[in-house]
Amino acid sequence: MFLNNAIANHLSGLQIPQPLLATAESENAPIILSGVLLTLILIYLSSKIGSEIARRLDLPPVLGELVAGVIIGVSAFRLVIFPEGGFTASDSVVMSVLQLLNQLSPAAVNSIFAQQSEVISVIAELGVIILLFEIGLESDIRQLKEVGVQAFVVAFIGVTVPFAAGTIGLMYFFHVAAIPAIFAGAALTATSIGITSKVLAEIGQLKSKEGQIIVGAAVIDDVLGIIVLAVVASLAKTGEVDITNVFILLISAIAFLFGSILLGGFFNKSFVALVSKLKTRGNIVIPAFIFAYAMAFIGNAIHLEAILGAFAAGLVLDETDARNELDELIKPVADLLVPVFFVTVGARADLSVLNPMIPENRSGLLIAAFLLVVAIIGKVITGWVVFGIPNINRLAIGIGMVPRGEVGLVFAGIGTASGAIDKPLEVAIIIMVILTTFLAPPFLRIAFGKTEAPVMTEESA
Amino acid sequence: MFLNNAIANHLSGLQIPQPLLATAESENAPIILSGVLLTLILIYLSSKIGSEIARRLDLPPVLGELVAGVIIGVSAFRLVIFPEGGFTASDSVVMSVLQLLNQLSPAAVNSIFAQQSEVISVIAELGVIILLFEIGLESDIRQLKEVGVQAFVVAFIGVTVPFAAGTIGLMYFFHVAAIPAIFAGAALTATSIGITSKVLAEIGQLKSKEGQIIVGAAVIDDVLGIIVLAVVASLAKTGEVDITNVFILLISAIAFLFGSILLGGFFNKSFVALVSKLKTRGNIVIPAFIFAYAMAFIGNAIHLEAILGAFAAGLVLDETDARNELDELIKPVADLLVPVFFVTVGARADLSVLNPMIPENRSGLLIAAFLLVVAIIGKVITGWVVFGIPNINRLAIGIGMVPRGEVGLVFAGIGTASGAIDKPLEVAIIIMVILTTFLAPPFLRIAFGKTEAPVMTEESA
Repeated sequence: MFLNNAIANHLSGLQIPQPLLATAESENAPIILSGVLLTLILIYLSSKIGSEIARRLDLPPVLGELVAGVIIGVSAFRLVIFPEGGFTASDSVVMSVLQLLNQLSPAAVNSIFAQQSEVISVIAELGVIILLFEIGLESDIRQLKEVGVQAFVVAFIGVTVPFAAGTIGLMYFFHVAAIPAIFAGAALTATSIGITSKVLAEIGQLKSKEGQIIVGAAVIDDVLGIIVLAVVASLAKTGEVDITNVFILLISAIAFLFGSILLGGFFNKSFVALVSKLKTRGNIVIPAFIFAYAMAFIGNAIHLEAILGAFAAGLVLDETDARNELDELIKPVADLLVPVFFVTVGARADLSVLNPMIPENRSGLLIAAFLLVVAIIGKVITGWVVFGIPNINRLAIGIGMVPRGEVGLVFAGIGTASGAIDKPLEVAIIIMVILTTFLAPPFLRIAFGKTEAPVMTEESA
Repeated sequence: MFLNNAIANHLSGLQIPQPLLATAESENAPIILSGVLLTLILIYLSSKIGSEIARRLDLPPVLGELVAGVIIGVSAFRLVIFPEGGFTASDSVVMSVLQLLNQLSPAAVNSIFAQQSEVISVIAELGVIILLFEIGLESDIRQLKEVGVQAFVVAFIGVTVPFAAGTIGLMYFFHVAAIPAIFAGAALTATSIGITSKVLAEIGQLKSKEGQIIVGAAVIDDVLGIIVLAVVASLAKTGEVDITNVFILLISAIAFLFGSILLGGFFNKSFVALVSKLKTRGNIVIPAFIFAYAMAFIGNAIHLEAILGAFAAGLVLDETDARNELDELIKPVADLLVPVFFVTVGARADLSVLNPMIPENRSGLLIAAFLLVVAIIGKVITGWVVFGIPNINRLAIGIGMVPRGEVGLVFAGIGTASGAIDKPLEVAIIIMVILTTFLAPPFLRIAFGKTEAPVMTEESA
């Protein structure tokens, strides 16, 4: 029984809660809190320094936050690292400080490391949920509907072209087997809504035609990417595609996005009516966050993404009379949580895969160069499939679709875990994700042109 | 080696991170997020319903949040429970929903339960940190200095009288041995700043003379309580008092509180100068939170409390020109995080200890009745030691010091863990804590009188 528990612990990565453990946990609670506080201080300090420097160099502040994350993360100072990738507490500077202050045993410090990392990860995920909620609030549902067809075409081309070109190219030029080639091709598909929409907001282009097409296409892209992932993952696991599962995903995605927007019309009025009746503090934010978190939960529960739910919630609440007040109230909350997301994205990015001195990176670097070209060209061309809108900035739309962000890393992670892709291919995918993520923000700013973007929304804190 | 790890896991309550585990962790990440979202939704829903009902019954909204926590917590519906006290995932309604949605193995669901509980616990702790930061911002350092001597006298009497009366009474009337009697006496000492200051803010009395004496005394009380705890814990562990340790604690507490206030004068100006130079979003909140979290971290690191640091940070920033803007920015953040603290305090309170049908509760109930009388009288009398201020509401000051809240539970937890106190005495302490915590808010409101409190600060969300 004891050994069974022990094995279960090792497999699941966690303990079986028992009365005995509760005491140990609550004894460590102040130290876990210290770890979280110290990590948040480091994240805030570096994000502010990074974004201010980026701003002065006329680069998007979010790029500064990503780079700040790289500097305090696994690639450089290792102040903020995570257990994934085999790191233990002794690799983490924060943990070493805590160990020094509290004279902890190695087992205790590893336990605290795992728990505080989980807390920071969840705060980062809440950060991107709130970011997408805010983007939804700033987006206009009517404008999104107007550009809906264009957004769909952009998303569709932006998924199929990189997928086909990536898969065929890997098989033809690099003699990669079909399944890993399909996996890598799939990792080229999904655009990171978070990074693109944050840059758009920063340069005051979120409400432009181009901005709305990019956001709309990125949302559709995300849904298509998740469906591609489901197809590819079942292909890797069983050798065949689970049609039922794919069909369920597709239906639930469509039902969710359209259903929430349709229901929104009804919810609008009840939200305002409810808010006006509440008399205690938090009368607007609490109902708004209940709605946003509920939509995020549903998005997650039906195996889509939490951020899609949060975006839909923002779109719906943007239609209410409480929107202006809500916009103001959500700002400080977003300011405190969103940087945690971007800094940890940077902190998790292991730039050592870019080092050609490490032999196993070399074959990966060649493949990476190929994937990068496909990743950029395959998305940039989408700007030219937009039709019926004169004088549109096609290059900006194309570049807006380039960053892969967290979605691409999920593909690489699942591919490696299932054994479908080998180390060089994994390295190549990670390099492609890092470079598209870091290159897109400055180029997006350039593509929109400085003179066209005088509205400094980021200053209205 | 494997078995050693296994034992270490059991003792420390957590896994040794290994590459293998990282995968399991990241695979479970969306489910942990779902658990956190669902728990937060339940907390927000119940806190809003609870506070609105309390408001309509003319009770403090925070009491509604505490009762809402009891209803969704371990005592009633078990929607939000924690692994402490031997609960497993199968006891939690949230976990059962997640298991149903994701077809999880029992080991995985227990691991997710432990991790999401830790995340919620830390969010609750951040909630009380932000509450005290806000209370610090709303307190006036000059006014606190004016009533400093009175606050110290109130705190000193409020610690020594219940401690002496409790310890001697338990030994004399109930024939409890010296060490457990001292432990229970110590659990009677510390006032919960969180609950008292929240009620004061809600009834618009935070800035009154009485309010400032209560807050000042509660802060001093907390420091004295921590020193008492250190003395008692070392007494229970080794049979003698570690004088050096107590001395270090005392010195560091005094140095910390006075040092931070003195340094504040210097920091004031640099804070405003820094904020005016920042040009990206979050230019005020991020530096403010870096300061608040840093002070909380120091408070925690020197084995005081995080909330004392946050309170000191608020006091310092209250002196800056940015205070009004900061007040507005911190409100929505507090509205979202503070209820998590109060609802989880309620959710953790196991009211089954009040049930006289359970035999082992009966001897506890008698002792509890005694402790409760000492706890209330020992604090209420402190109002009458205030001197030199005419027309002061002495009853209100006394009642303001009554709620023990989380501090008393820490005493009970450490006492049980060290084996110093037995089950009936632990039950008695928990009952005393629950009843003082739940009874004080309505009586505090009554003591201040309805007509004197027309300022509804809670409506200015």
